[in-house]
Amino acid sequence: MINKVKAAVSGLVGSLSNKHSALPGPVAPPEKEPPRAVTAKPQPPCRPGFLKLSPEEFQKSGDHNGRTVLSPKTPGELQWGTGYAEVINAGKSQHNEDQACCEFVVVEERDNKWNNNCSELRTEESFNSDLQRSNKVSDMLCFYYWGLFDGHAGYGCALTSSRLLHLHICDQLRDLVYILQQPTVAAPLCLCNATAAENASCTPTHEKTEPPLETTIRFHTEKQVFPESLVIGALENAFKQMDEQIEGERTSQNIEGGCCALAAVCLMGKLFVANAGDSRAIIIRQGKTISMSQEFTPETERQRLQFLATLKPELLGNEFTCLEFPRRIQQKELGKRMLYRDHTMTGWSYKAIEEENMKFPLIYGEGKKARVMATIGVTRGFGDHDLKVYNSNIYIKPFLSCVPGVKVYDLAGCEHGADDVMVMGTDGLWDVITDREVADIVQRVFASHGTDHPNRYNLAAQELVLRTRGVRKESGWRLVNGKMASLDDISVFVIPLIGYGS
Amino acid sequence: MINKVKAAVSGLVGSLSNKHSALPGPVAPPEKEPPRAVTAKPQPPCRPGFLKLSPEEFQKSGDHNGRTVLSPKTPGELQWGTGYAEVINAGKSQHNEDQACCEFVVVEERDNKWNNNCSELRTEESFNSDLQRSNKVSDMLCFYYWGLFDGHAGYGCALTSSRLLHLHICDQLRDLVYILQQPTVAAPLCLCNATAAENASCTPTHEKTEPPLETTIRFHTEKQVFPESLVIGALENAFKQMDEQIEGERTSQNIEGGCCALAAVCLMGKLFVANAGDSRAIIIRQGKTISMSQEFTPETERQRLQFLATLKPELLGNEFTCLEFPRRIQQKELGKRMLYRDHTMTGWSYKAIEEENMKFPLIYGEGKKARVMATIGVTRGFGDHDLKVYNSNIYIKPFLSCVPGVKVYDLAGCEHGADDVMVMGTDGLWDVITDREVADIVQRVFASHGTDHPNRYNLAAQELVLRTRGVRKESGWRLVNGKMASLDDISVFVIPLIGYGS
Repeated sequence: MINKVKAAVSGLVGSLSNKHSALPGPVAPPEKEPPRAVTAKPQPPCRPGFLKLSPEEFQKSGDHNGRTVLSPKTPGELQWGTGYAEVINAGKSQHNEDQACCEFVVVEERDNKWNNNCSELRTEESFNSDLQRSNKVSDMLCFYYWGLFDGHAGYGCALTSSRLLHLHICDQLRDLVYILQQPTVAAPLCLCNATAAENASCTPTHEKTEPPLETTIRFHTEKQVFPESLVIGALENAFKQMDEQIEGERTSQNIEGGCCALAAVCLMGKLFVANAGDSRAIIIRQGKTISMSQEFTPETERQRLQFLATLKPELLGNEFTCLEFPRRIQQKELGKRMLYRDHTMTGWSYKAIEEENMKFPLIYGEGKKARVMATIGVTRGFGDHDLKVYNSNIYIKPFLSCVPGVKVYDLAGCEHGADDVMVMGTDGLWDVITDREVADIVQRVFASHGTDHPNRYNLAAQELVLRTRGVRKESGWRLVNGKMASLDDISVFVIPLIGYGS
Repeated sequence: MINKVKAAVSGLVGSLSNKHSALPGPVAPPEKEPPRAVTAKPQPPCRPGFLKLSPEEFQKSGDHNGRTVLSPKTPGELQWGTGYAEVINAGKSQHNEDQACCEFVVVEERDNKWNNNCSELRTEESFNSDLQRSNKVSDMLCFYYWGLFDGHAGYGCALTSSRLLHLHICDQLRDLVYILQQPTVAAPLCLCNATAAENASCTPTHEKTEPPLETTIRFHTEKQVFPESLVIGALENAFKQMDEQIEGERTSQNIEGGCCALAAVCLMGKLFVANAGDSRAIIIRQGKTISMSQEFTPETERQRLQFLATLKPELLGNEFTCLEFPRRIQQKELGKRMLYRDHTMTGWSYKAIEEENMKFPLIYGEGKKARVMATIGVTRGFGDHDLKVYNSNIYIKPFLSCVPGVKVYDLAGCEHGADDVMVMGTDGLWDVITDREVADIVQRVFASHGTDHPNRYNLAAQELVLRTRGVRKESGWRLVNGKMASLDDISVFVIPLIGYGS
């Protein structure tokens, strides 16, 4: 098992690749091992495989002055005809620290006779042709996947995550293949402890109606859990496994920095959107916007972080206070009654300032400038295991979480037209534009590029990136309205919802 | 100060009173003192003063078989023409453990020359006549208040809270009198440390435009805090003070049990609804319902409680596991892979059961049967400081919170007709009826009792209580549709929103 993980991760340590980000081998749940004495070289920078960049194009994509907007070269390159576009930042980091992944993933029941691995390598076509030839359909499950990763302090963590997260999701689903095929039937309380051989003998076929799962007498107090909740749990645990793998291999594989992660999975006719960080997904349906993610920032997670600091004050290293104040307190203000709030409060109140309160606030700043321990502006994602407060020995990681918030959208239960899409974007997009403006831009592109235009979703993604990157003026990058444009990396998927089932 | 608290609380230890629940003296912030050696007798049971029950009527109100619905005797007894009705439980406890309070409260700036106390005794009429006679309007602020308290394990805590919570809110607002008079102006970062005399000298008059508050240079990173947030903070801290007072005086004043608290405050043209527990408030406007509270139960607060238990496992006394399972695990299931979720998860997953997981789950059961440590079904409110897990030395209180969730409704910013109301009810109401059904019942009462009917809001409250108490059949109390009626105490306010400003 350990060898498989090693193989999977060392597969990343290669040269610039034109391949899709799929790994050559299967991935197994990460297992911790002590850091190796000899560390690998960092992974070289690269862009998503589906862009199929030549070395020259890759070189050009890194130009912070030109900021060329990139899109797949051919329409229909991505599943469902998904549109994609990206642009590099205006110089805040050497490389584009965003990454993206778009995959069709086949999940095979764990330990069945057919294939012992998560067969992520299979294509949609081979899966469908197998379906037709075989009656073992119930041994498999497939999902569509889109992932965006917004790195910081290096591109390594985002790159690794873009290559592995869907495999961790696949791994989490491998115990659920039979269960998820009956979305309206409550999940069994426990799985049978069968070995591979035993499992094989209880593998259901079309002739067999009994599930291969232990039928436990249900107590009247037993809670019913439906498959949708299992997918949510699988996503939550896949994110944890991803972060554990990065923790375990960050030294040996030289995985630097951290990243936010936004992943969408289509399974059982539903769209599951898992978000850890400040990327965002919205659905635009009949012109209306539906939020499909919540952002996790020092401001939105203030109470969680303050609660943790209140219970574990040692995490503050005697340098920070867990109270929030509207600004830094000055020595001369000792004893005055100032505005504050603690972990229990959503409102504000006044308190007399004591010496203890003179420390730097755990959460400080407003909007994009809000920081945890004056260091980091997002509170969920992967990596950052070595991140410390500047010039101190205080680790930030205990305050960060890798657990995503998950929202579910009933794709099969709603009618969709060609203009109904989900837009996924890193914060480079959303920092300078509202959900409504995104919807309006997308609608304008669709209005001038009919439903039979082969490239309309790429064009919509490009237009979103162009509009938020803006135009370079003497005063810097500017939006059409003259305001500051986004100086950050920007990456956008525009996913046509009509793609489901088509 | 301590004497004032003692006076306030010992004012509670009296006989059945027809007075409003207002205390004869002012209340001060609670201060802890060691429990007295000699404990007072428990407060005698009683019903809200505004019902003006005779001793015979009070006696009859306690009949668990008759379950007489009570309402104020005269229309317009309560401010804004608020309607109210209540009924006792069907035998689950000797006394009605619900309590209610409805008050007009005048808040005077702390330490000004006029009055050193929170002059809760003043009536609306005397306040208004003072306003006309005096130019010291800015020394005072007033608010309308409605409170519902749903007790458990005794009526003492609910009774004490119904008599004191609004005074704690008043106390919290006493520093904010000037600030709240300019709702659109950001609150000052700090209050001046003036003594009473100094404060008096800087009391603003109509001639003076400068606020009596320190004008601090605002850093560009300073967060602006508006008065609405101060009211929310005041409510949050008032709830904490209330609970601290109960903790400090529960022995000396023999305050038994615990209670949920739902309080509505009208101030600055806004309705602030603070809820700790499983009571509920909804606004019915133009026939549509707007939720004005969230419920706090073992199910809605599972993740907070599991997080606390994960960080402080000693609180579980080696008897409970912080994981949730769909039901109790049996010894023979050790080693099997069962459904579970931890504090990070909203979904479910499978895990192999270890010996540690055989302990009783911290959160267990579903719906109304969900319990924290197999003991209590609500997770917020006052009291319960002595509550332990049965036959153990494990305290429940660390898992409970007295902090309310606060929602704000812009009363002055919306137009209201005579049929637009806020309904506040204890869980006895909501357990057997939906928000929509409540709205429909209220609308039917209003349709048959025109806007000039003097008693329409009491009639609506009575109808809600009658419909949820149901009718006594051989099979017990039944709703019209034959389902089980509410066997709990039921208390309901129906507040006409047109009452604001009228």
